[in-house]
Amino acid sequence: MKELYLKKADENLPELNEDIVIPDVPHTILEKGNDIVIDLGNHYVGYFSFNLGYVDIYIDAPVRLYVKFCETRRELDDEFSTYDGLLCESWLQEEFINIDFPGVYKMHRRYAARYIKIKVLATPKKIMLSDFKFKAVSSADVAQLKNCNCYDELKKIDSVAVNTLKNCMHRVFEDGPKRDRRLWIGDLRLEALTNYYTFNNLPLVRRCLYLFAAADTNDKGFIPGYVYENPNYVSGYWFLEDYALLFVASVCDYYNHTEDKDMFCELYPVIKKQMDAMHKTLDSDSIVTVLEGCDVFIDWCQGLEKITSLQGVYLYVLSKLADVLDIIDHEDKYVYAKRYEDAQKSAENMLYDKEKQAFINAKDNYQYSVHSAVWMILGGAVTGKNAERILLDSLNSYDSVKPFTPYMHHYVVEAMVKLNLLKEAEEYIKKYWNGMVELGADTFYEAYVPENPEFSPYKDRKINSMCHAWSCTPAYFIRKYFDNAGI
Amino acid sequence: MKELYLKKADENLPELNEDIVIPDVPHTILEKGNDIVIDLGNHYVGYFSFNLGYVDIYIDAPVRLYVKFCETRRELDDEFSTYDGLLCESWLQEEFINIDFPGVYKMHRRYAARYIKIKVLATPKKIMLSDFKFKAVSSADVAQLKNCNCYDELKKIDSVAVNTLKNCMHRVFEDGPKRDRRLWIGDLRLEALTNYYTFNNLPLVRRCLYLFAAADTNDKGFIPGYVYENPNYVSGYWFLEDYALLFVASVCDYYNHTEDKDMFCELYPVIKKQMDAMHKTLDSDSIVTVLEGCDVFIDWCQGLEKITSLQGVYLYVLSKLADVLDIIDHEDKYVYAKRYEDAQKSAENMLYDKEKQAFINAKDNYQYSVHSAVWMILGGAVTGKNAERILLDSLNSYDSVKPFTPYMHHYVVEAMVKLNLLKEAEEYIKKYWNGMVELGADTFYEAYVPENPEFSPYKDRKINSMCHAWSCTPAYFIRKYFDNAGI
Repeated sequence: MKELYLKKADENLPELNEDIVIPDVPHTILEKGNDIVIDLGNHYVGYFSFNLGYVDIYIDAPVRLYVKFCETRRELDDEFSTYDGLLCESWLQEEFINIDFPGVYKMHRRYAARYIKIKVLATPKKIMLSDFKFKAVSSADVAQLKNCNCYDELKKIDSVAVNTLKNCMHRVFEDGPKRDRRLWIGDLRLEALTNYYTFNNLPLVRRCLYLFAAADTNDKGFIPGYVYENPNYVSGYWFLEDYALLFVASVCDYYNHTEDKDMFCELYPVIKKQMDAMHKTLDSDSIVTVLEGCDVFIDWCQGLEKITSLQGVYLYVLSKLADVLDIIDHEDKYVYAKRYEDAQKSAENMLYDKEKQAFINAKDNYQYSVHSAVWMILGGAVTGKNAERILLDSLNSYDSVKPFTPYMHHYVVEAMVKLNLLKEAEEYIKKYWNGMVELGADTFYEAYVPENPEFSPYKDRKINSMCHAWSCTPAYFIRKYFDNAGI
Repeated sequence: MKELYLKKADENLPELNEDIVIPDVPHTILEKGNDIVIDLGNHYVGYFSFNLGYVDIYIDAPVRLYVKFCETRRELDDEFSTYDGLLCESWLQEEFINIDFPGVYKMHRRYAARYIKIKVLATPKKIMLSDFKFKAVSSADVAQLKNCNCYDELKKIDSVAVNTLKNCMHRVFEDGPKRDRRLWIGDLRLEALTNYYTFNNLPLVRRCLYLFAAADTNDKGFIPGYVYENPNYVSGYWFLEDYALLFVASVCDYYNHTEDKDMFCELYPVIKKQMDAMHKTLDSDSIVTVLEGCDVFIDWCQGLEKITSLQGVYLYVLSKLADVLDIIDHEDKYVYAKRYEDAQKSAENMLYDKEKQAFINAKDNYQYSVHSAVWMILGGAVTGKNAERILLDSLNSYDSVKPFTPYMHHYVVEAMVKLNLLKEAEEYIKKYWNGMVELGADTFYEAYVPENPEFSPYKDRKINSMCHAWSCTPAYFIRKYFDNAGI
């Protein structure tokens, strides 16, 4: 099937839309040591070019320039040479270029940037830089985007979220256009959901689903958490049980949005393999386990215990899958409904602390977290007023582990929406995502910790991705639940 | 006429011949900090490519490499960052490149190199480099080259000289393929002469002559010493009287080689303008002067007095021109013959020191030099045994200024050949040019001072061009005078 899935993925390779951005910078005369900053006016992803000219006298040597691409204003002043983080410094967007001849110079790599700094490292004569152009690319077609009719901060949050998604949409739903451009399942799911309410690029969703369907599963049957597809397809090496489940959720989302039964059925063997692999992880209490060679993501909090959350993800996906199978009247519909019933009962029995009146992580190491609450609610292990109380208690509690990544914050909001806590959901979005807007964000960040804006999961903020897929979902919530709702 | 000349120059733009050089280097696995040296086996000019692969695990970040191109072995160890010379450091052939994806990576700039060093500056994983290729380019067609039938050191000198010329032949006869790629008259003349006896690329000669014919003359009527032609035609800013004269010599050389009367006549207006401009520099003694805004090259020796040499160049060119005009029976033939007669008499009367029995620079500052002797002989101001004595005395004298550049050494040999001192010419070539061969030269250098191999006219040897047009003429002498001569 791998070949078929890859063929389908190729057939759905989207066209890239181009948008020529011409910054408001006049021609500039520079000498060795001078620099210039170009503000594109917004965050874009694409290709930069400019004209190198001479002033009166022909430049009789190559011109050597340092060019730095910055997603945010403060990166302009960051000294990249002092970078000392965990990830490879080659992600820092900087180039040393030698230009042999006057004329238009097109830089051939793709960059993610709002600001561009050019410093003249060497020239024998004065140079003139002009005709700065940034060819922004995205597989998002902005003509498909409907106006957002919400007001106050939500309107701005929506526009930044939409920009974030747009700038992550290329040959695949990228994780971040500056760094880590590969396709991850967790991000794909959130991007696809937001895409349905914004650009609605369906070939791109199909392409990404096929790319995962084509992946090499591990000995447990799980697909990897990510794949590479450019220039060649390479299946990923990290197997995350929650991400494997969310692949299934993503196919269900796609079916719910499109009613494309053919594609659902085409991918069903992969779905079944994931669900069977997950089923095999269950212990004698019908609680999920993490098998050797596998891992779980859920969130980035240090020391987070994940079994209860993972059980919630399992329930969430079982429920979604059972619903779709029911709609299409698939022969397996009872299989997953039954599994759901069992896993739900186990969750109630094994993961709920009656004394604390909370879902806790009881199976491996006892830990109270918002994550457990959110995923138990999303998985339907608890409903109604009790669910509402459990969620709000966990968020307000001094001793619970709190959500860390924008990715996890998404699922908090999703849980609120599920419980019809729309007011709380709106406030939550405003509180968290508007914090980035107030910092001047043109796109939402990979990592945003309100009490520590310097935070980097990689020990050096300079490598952080400032336009990151998993932060784009406010546009999904706003457009699905708040647009015109007059809340 | 400018437009016509440029059109003709374009019509004569030569094809570049390509030669794929595959160095004997196996694939190599490298980590951050490792480096590799590639030896192409000879000096080439062209484009470098290689394959970047991964080892077991996909490289999930760009790979940052430092790539250094070296014309000679010792440059490999030179630390470019300490460069402190007079010319722009951007001529140093080094790049910092970021490669996003595995696969073939083609560097887009042209380099002049025998050795290539690649150092891994950043990579998250092991990389594999392989399939090193150097696409050597030249407008020289090696199939046109006849075998050289001389023996001993001459054979090796010839092959290095031929390689030097080949690697300077591109869209024009370049000065040096590493540095100063523009077209200079002094170099063009020597390259064209050598070309007639080697690759015989006549369109390339025509192109270069038309490019100078199209140049903007200064207020005295002189064409500039150089022009730029890539990507656009730019007329030079430095006006050298001897170079303007040598343009005329180059057209005469071309006529003598091809008997292309049409082209000679087409360029005659420019020839006439140069000769008239030079005629106007004559002082009341009929000795040339250097007009304001003009300059003279002759050679690089510090403090060299040039009037006597320049008078010699004038005589040399007047004589060549008169000969061609005589052959084609041009109406102006008597004009230049008469001017030659006057200028020759003046040289004898004003520039020859009877007491010292030598041509000296008497008109501006008294100075004894080989240069004066050589050019007076080439100009025919003295002939026979007296000329022979004057030349050898000047070369052997303790108090004469000696030739410095390979360019000037060429004219010493030319003077010897003119006096039929073939044995001395051969010894001179062996003594000077073989010194470079013994240093391991694949091509002859821009600057070579036997007693000071560290010499740089730019105060830092690292910027020297190690393949330079004006050093290629041993192949001319060897093939014209020594090949099969059995000397």
